[in-house]
Formats: sequence, structure tokens, C-alpha cells
Amino acid sequence: MQVRTILLSKSVFEDNDRAAEALRARLKEQGVCLVNVMSSPGSGKTTLLVSLIRRLSKRYRVGVMEADIDSDVDAVTVARETGCRSVQLHTGGMCHLDAGMTEEGLAALGGDLDLVFLENVGNLVCPAEYDTGATVDLVILSVPEGDDKPLKYPLVFGKCDLAVVSKTDALPYFDFDLKRCAENVRERNPKAEVIPVSAKTGENMDALVNWFIKKLTEV
Amino acid sequence: MQVRTILLSKSVFEDNDRAAEALRARLKEQGVCLVNVMSSPGSGKTTLLVSLIRRLSKRYRVGVMEADIDSDVDAVTVARETGCRSVQLHTGGMCHLDAGMTEEGLAALGGDLDLVFLENVGNLVCPAEYDTGATVDLVILSVPEGDDKPLKYPLVFGKCDLAVVSKTDALPYFDFDLKRCAENVRERNPKAEVIPVSAKTGENMDALVNWFIKKLTEV
Repeated sequence: MQVRTILLSKSVFEDNDRAAEALRARLKEQGVCLVNVMSSPGSGKTTLLVSLIRRLSKRYRVGVMEADIDSDVDAVTVARETGCRSVQLHTGGMCHLDAGMTEEGLAALGGDLDLVFLENVGNLVCPAEYDTGATVDLVILSVPEGDDKPLKYPLVFGKCDLAVVSKTDALPYFDFDLKRCAENVRERNPKAEVIPVSAKTGENMDALVNWFIKKLTEV
Repeated sequence: MQVRTILLSKSVFEDNDRAAEALRARLKEQGVCLVNVMSSPGSGKTTLLVSLIRRLSKRYRVGVMEADIDSDVDAVTVARETGCRSVQLHTGGMCHLDAGMTEEGLAALGGDLDLVFLENVGNLVCPAEYDTGATVDLVILSVPEGDDKPLKYPLVFGKCDLAVVSKTDALPYFDFDLKRCAENVRERNPKAEVIPVSAKTGENMDALVNWFIKKLTEV
């Protein structure tokens, strides 16, 4: 599977916030939903995206941009498993994406898409500090990481529209309380929705798919 | 349990590498082993440190510095569970520690210690880019994160002296191959040692304790 790789350079925009607002306005005008996916390394982002895209691509034209420091494993996996358009963003060691890098990725991906997932660098700190221009901010927290993470990483949970709790199939093996986790998310962000899922067993994936369908009818 | 909290400011040192080298030389002269502990959020750093310090503090004078963006949960836990000296480093949103911040923490912790653990910010990207002046760089990778992480985060695995694979009690529930993980670490770093442990069950903790005892006799 051939996947195009984009080598990102430092952003040319001095004012990232303004560039992000402009990008978001343009996407809204074009009716494109751009989802900025943030999480720790190893939270199951790629597996979750594959499962989600398989369900959504029956109704929508979906594209994926995969940020990775030094490999194209994820972009190839997503393209192979879902058949959707996918580009790899090589960050060259950078710890986050900004609006300029996101624009570069979108240009490489091409137009005519309803829904684009941007898999940000695996990091709960820096990606939260840079507005990518996305229309939806999503954070994934996996069960093995612990239900206290929203308290420890306030910025990323404070800015997200949706918090997905992944790997719920592992709940029996870890001391993770879904109710306490949802309370911790809401303490940081009363407006965020919390949806627990297992991409492995498919548990509650319908609720997540429906959240996106609702979002897409709003665009 | 009262734990002192240090509010870190941006480093005064323009040349972090030089400051780090100077700090490391001073620590070696004083016979202090300073361990920079890096990992993803939720890898079980704090639980592992508590288990390790309980075993090592019978023979050595141990101190801990806990970097946290916005809470002092970890410093209080470590102090309460081990009785060792502990300070909280508030990074105020910063995504890494540098040599200047480490010096501030050491000054607050006070002298007369053999072994100091510095729990860096939960992040596999940025902490790897800043030399803290530590004499040992340790990275923790937990089983649920996946055995491919050394390939995806080359810098942190490339610079570590020791890679600890944590939460091995979860091996039956995840597709994680210890042998493949060790090969992936060695691909990045032929000199790194790899020690798999479970702080929960105590499995192989002796090997980790012995690694530190050996290190401390070398100081």
C-alpha cells in the first residue's frame, strides 16, 4: 500500500491562533468536519480509528492524516484496513501539530471529503497548546492509563469536545472507575461528552458512530 | 503529609547542554546517582517508584522529585508510601524538565542523598530532547502501550540506559511480545538494558533492584 508522506516544516504563520480560526471558518464553509485526535502513546488511537472509519465510510467520504515522528506504520495500516485516503505527516521530532502543518496535510490529502481525522502526535501535553484549526477536538484515554488522567492533564481535557475512553474490554484487569473518570473529565470541562468503547469487541462503538453522524448533520 | 511544592520558572541557562554536563559532573563528584524517569502518562511510573524505593531505601538515602503540570498527587503518594524525602515540581504547563529546573529541585530536596529519582513529565517526546543532567536515563514502557513504541519514539529509547517494561501482570490480556519489544529497543539503542517487571505482583522487581545496586556501587 503506497501512502504519501509529507515532511512538515516549521509553520510559516506567526500567529497560529489566527491561522487556525481562518482554517476552521473555511472548513465550515466547505462542510468539512476535521477531527483533531489527541492521546498518549499506546492509547489505541489507530485501532479505534480503523474501527470507526470502517463504519462511517459507508455513508461519508473519509480521509486520514497521521502525524508520526519517524515512521509511517499508522498511515499504511489505516489505508490498508479501511481503504480510505491517507497521508503521513512526518513531524521530524516535533511534539505537536499547528494550523500551518494541518493545512499542508489537507492540501496533500486533496478535496471532496466530508470527514477528516487528524491523528496528532502521541502526547497529552503539547498538542493541547496548539490550535490545529480542527472543528472537533477529541481526546482518547485508554483504561490502562488510569481514571485520574483528566486531573493530571487539564489542558487537553479542558479543550476537548469529546473524550473517548478506549480499551473498555480491559476494565476487569485494571482499577479504573468509568463513573469517576467521567466526573474527572467534567471537573475539567462540563461541556465534554464522554463515550466509553472497545474497538476490539465493538462494545458501544454504535454510540461513537452516532455521535459523529450527529456532528456531520450539524456541519 | 506535607510536601514542598516548587514553582519552576523558565531556565536561566541559555546553554542547557553545558549546564547539564556541569550538574552531572558535580553529582558524580558527590557520589549521587540521579535517575531521570521518562514515560507516557499512565505507564505506572509512580507505582513502580514506590515499589522500588521501598526496597532500596533500606540500604540507601533516597529522594524523589515529582514533575507534574498541575497537581501534587504523585509527590504526596510517594512520600506517604515510602517515607522518603519528596518535592513537587510544578511545571506550569511546560512539557519537559531541563538542567536548570532539575537544579532548583535538588536544592529544595537538600543534600545527603545517595539516590534521587526525577519523575519527568508524562510525555515520550519533549523530555527526551532536554538533558536534565541526570546520571541515569530510564524509560518506562507499560505492556498496554504496545511493543512497537521504541520504533515510534526513537529519541527517548535511543538515549536511555535502561528500559523498564512495566505492568507485565497484564501480558495475558494484550498482544505484547517481550522478545520483540527488547529487539525494538535494541534496534534504537544496542547499549540499553531491558528489564520487564510488575510492581503489582512484585515479579522480577529483584532484577531491577539489583540493577540499581550495581549502578550505585559504580558511583
